[in-house]
Amino acid sequence: MIHRVLAADLPRHVGEHVLLAGWVHRRRTLKSVTFLVIRDRTGLAQAVAAPGELPPVPEETVVEVRGRVTANAQAPGGVELTGPVVVPVAEPLRPPPFDLYRPTIPASLPTILDHAPVALRHPLLKARAAIAAASVAGFRESLDTQGFTEVHTPKIVATATESGANVFEIDYFGRPAYLAQSPQFFKQALVGVFERVYEVGPVFRAEPHDTARHLAQYTSLDAELGFVGDHRDVMAVLRHALAGMVEHVAARAADAVGLLGAKLPRVPDRIPAIEFTEAQELLARHTGEDPRGEPDLAPAHERWLADWALRVHDSEFLFVTGYPMAKRPFYTHPDPARPEYSRSFDLVFRGLELVTGGQRLHRHADYVEALEARGERPADYQGYLAAFAHGMPPHGGFALGLERWTARLAGDANVRVATLFPRDLHRLAP
Amino acid sequence: MIHRVLAADLPRHVGEHVLLAGWVHRRRTLKSVTFLVIRDRTGLAQAVAAPGELPPVPEETVVEVRGRVTANAQAPGGVELTGPVVVPVAEPLRPPPFDLYRPTIPASLPTILDHAPVALRHPLLKARAAIAAASVAGFRESLDTQGFTEVHTPKIVATATESGANVFEIDYFGRPAYLAQSPQFFKQALVGVFERVYEVGPVFRAEPHDTARHLAQYTSLDAELGFVGDHRDVMAVLRHALAGMVEHVAARAADAVGLLGAKLPRVPDRIPAIEFTEAQELLARHTGEDPRGEPDLAPAHERWLADWALRVHDSEFLFVTGYPMAKRPFYTHPDPARPEYSRSFDLVFRGLELVTGGQRLHRHADYVEALEARGERPADYQGYLAAFAHGMPPHGGFALGLERWTARLAGDANVRVATLFPRDLHRLAP
Repeated sequence: MIHRVLAADLPRHVGEHVLLAGWVHRRRTLKSVTFLVIRDRTGLAQAVAAPGELPPVPEETVVEVRGRVTANAQAPGGVELTGPVVVPVAEPLRPPPFDLYRPTIPASLPTILDHAPVALRHPLLKARAAIAAASVAGFRESLDTQGFTEVHTPKIVATATESGANVFEIDYFGRPAYLAQSPQFFKQALVGVFERVYEVGPVFRAEPHDTARHLAQYTSLDAELGFVGDHRDVMAVLRHALAGMVEHVAARAADAVGLLGAKLPRVPDRIPAIEFTEAQELLARHTGEDPRGEPDLAPAHERWLADWALRVHDSEFLFVTGYPMAKRPFYTHPDPARPEYSRSFDLVFRGLELVTGGQRLHRHADYVEALEARGERPADYQGYLAAFAHGMPPHGGFALGLERWTARLAGDANVRVATLFPRDLHRLAP
Repeated sequence: MIHRVLAADLPRHVGEHVLLAGWVHRRRTLKSVTFLVIRDRTGLAQAVAAPGELPPVPEETVVEVRGRVTANAQAPGGVELTGPVVVPVAEPLRPPPFDLYRPTIPASLPTILDHAPVALRHPLLKARAAIAAASVAGFRESLDTQGFTEVHTPKIVATATESGANVFEIDYFGRPAYLAQSPQFFKQALVGVFERVYEVGPVFRAEPHDTARHLAQYTSLDAELGFVGDHRDVMAVLRHALAGMVEHVAARAADAVGLLGAKLPRVPDRIPAIEFTEAQELLARHTGEDPRGEPDLAPAHERWLADWALRVHDSEFLFVTGYPMAKRPFYTHPDPARPEYSRSFDLVFRGLELVTGGQRLHRHADYVEALEARGERPADYQGYLAAFAHGMPPHGGFALGLERWTARLAGDANVRVATLFPRDLHRLAP
C-alpha cells in the first residue's frame, strides 16, 4: 500500500512533504499559475505550480502528487500542495462525457445513468451513496441493540406469492421460478426461530410503469418481530430505527449532507398517527375532494396529509393506520373491533409513502380462511403455512425502501438519482 | 408490547413474580412433578409444577407463563419458575415432524431442509445463524473502520459476464437478462468512485452439480480497494476482516459457539502464504502425486496444504498465491515478473477454499488485450470497460462465501446445514 496522506487529513501535515493520490478533478491554468484539484475518497485538495511545471494531465487521470503542505486561507481546507511533482498512474482513454468538476452534472438524467460508472464520481452523486450507507448502518445498529438477528433469505422462490403480479420469471434448472418480491414469508417464518429478524437486501418488482418512484430492483430494509400487542409495537421499533438512521447519517455522512444542502428530519419521540378513516374525513373537509369510501389514499392525498402533519404536529413523518383490509395483503391482521379495517400502517415521509407495515395473522386457521376468502388455494401456500402449523406468536413488521429514503433526504424527485445502477422497464445496464 | 422477562435474564429476578413468553420446548411429566421448558430468543427456562396443575400444552405451543423466579441449582441457569400459570397464545396444528428438544434433530438432512421453518427452531441450527450474523457484523465493522463504503449493486444484469456458464436466465420485461454471479464488475467500477467498497449480498450460480459445498444462491462478502501495490495489500485487508469476524463471533455469539462446541480459529498477525508453484513442489515431494504442470489445485491438495500449514505454521488459514493466469478470470492482474502467473490468491481455511481474490487489471488497453486473447469481443463488455476508460487506480479485492465460513466454524461437512433456506439443483422450497 502506498503511504499516502488523504485529502481530508492534509491540514494536519502543514510544513511536511507528503504523497497525495487520487484523480485529477480539475485542471485550471491561469496566466501565472496552474491549479490541480485532486479528488480522493475523502474530498478535494489543491496543488499549485507555475505554468509549465506540471505535466499536461487531463481530468480523471489517476495521479500521485508529492509536494509540501502549505497553509493558504484561500485554498479548500486552508492548505495546498506547493512544489508538486505529479506522476500519472493511469491515464484516461477519453474525457468524461460531462465535466465532473461542475457544481452539478450538465447532462440529462438518462445520460447520467447511461454513464453511471463515471457519473457517480461526481461529489453530489457520491454523497447520496454515502447517505445510503450511513442510513443502513444506523438501521442495523438500532435493531441489533433491540435483540434482532440479521438474516439472508432466498431471492429465488417457487411461487409468485406476494401478489402474483409484477413478478420476474427465471429459468431454474429448466423449471420456472420467480424472483422474490419481498422476504415477507421468510421473515415471518423466522419470527418462529429468532422472534426478531431483519434483512437488508434486494427485492424485485417487474413494475410495468415508468414512474419517478419505482424500480425493478431496490434495497429493502425489512424487519419482523414477535410477541407484539398490535401494530403499534411495530411502529415503535420503526421509530427507533428511523432515529438511528438519522443519527448515523448526521455522524457518518456529515460531509455528504453538507454538500447536498440536505436538511435532516427530526424524528419525534412519538411520530403522529392518524387513522385512515379520520384521514379521509380530514381530506373531505379541507381539500374539496371526497375520498371517503375509497380503499386507499392517492399520492396527492398523502402529500396533503404530510403537509398537514408538518403544520399541525411539526413532524415530517406521519403514520396512517387502519387501512381497509380490501387493499392489504392476505396476511394482514384485521382490527378485531372493525374487521373490515386492518392493524396496518403506512409511514409518509416528506409527502411520499416510505414504509408499509403492520401486524400479521399468526394462526394457521386464520391463514386458511383469509386465503380462501380471496379465492386462493391454501395448498399453493403449503411451504409458507408450515411455519404457522407449529405455533407462531402475534407478530408484525415493516419494509422500508432505501432508495426512496435516500432520495427524500437528498431532495430528489426521481428515485433513480439515489440509486447506484438503477434497473427499470427500460434500463438493464450499466 | 407485553412486559416479559427473557429467559437469559431470569437469574436477575429471583424472588420476583414475572411473565415469561415463548414456545413450549419440552414438556416432561414425572411421577410427582411436571417440567415445562420454555424457549425464547435468549435460551431456555424451566417451569415446574405438580402434575395436573398445568394445562396439557403440547410442544411448540406459544405460551405466556406467569410465576415466581426461584433459585434451584439443578435447573438450567440456576433458576426456575414455580407456581406457574400457563396461558396458551397459539396452539400448534400438529406436532413437529421431529422432536426439537433432542440434542440433535433425529432426521436426515433432506427431511430437515424440507421442514426448515420448524427445524430452524432447533437450538443447534439457530446457533449457526447467530454465528453467521455476528460474522457479517464483524466483516462490516472491520471495513467501515478502514474507510470502505457499503454499496448495493444490481442482481439483474444484461450479459452473463463473469464466466458465461452456470448463469440463471430471467425474463426481463420480455428481454433475456441474467442473475449476477458476483458484484465483480460493479465493485470495480465503484473503486473509481469510493476507492474502497464492500457489499454483502446474494450471488447466483446455476451450479449443475450436487455437491456438499455449492449452492445456487449464497451470500457473498465482497470487498474491493484501490491504490494497492499488489495483491498483498488486498490480503492484509482480508486478514483484518477475518480477525474482526472472529472477534465478533466470540463477543456476540458466545452461546452459539458454546452450544455447537465450536472452536474459533486464531487469525495470525501474518497468515502464512505459499506460492502456487511452491505448493505444487511440496505436494510432489510429500504426497506421492505430482501435480506440477496442473493449472489449479485439487480439493484433496488444498486439504493437504491446510494440514501442512497447521503443522508447520500453526495456522488454520493459508494463502496460496500466484495461480496460473490460465485458470483465473480475464480481469486478473498478471505477475509482471512471470506473466503466465497471476497476482491472485485463494485463502484455504480448515481444508477448504474460502476466499478468492487478487489484484485486477486497471488499464483499459490491458482489458481489451486480455479479452481478445481469450477470444472475447471487447464490445460485449462495453458497460464494464467504461469505468476503465476514465482513469482507474491499481486495485484488487476478494469474495468470501458466508455459508462456507459458517459451516467451517460449525464443523459442518455440508454447507446446506449453515444456510437458512438453501437453494440447489433439486431444492427451490421452502
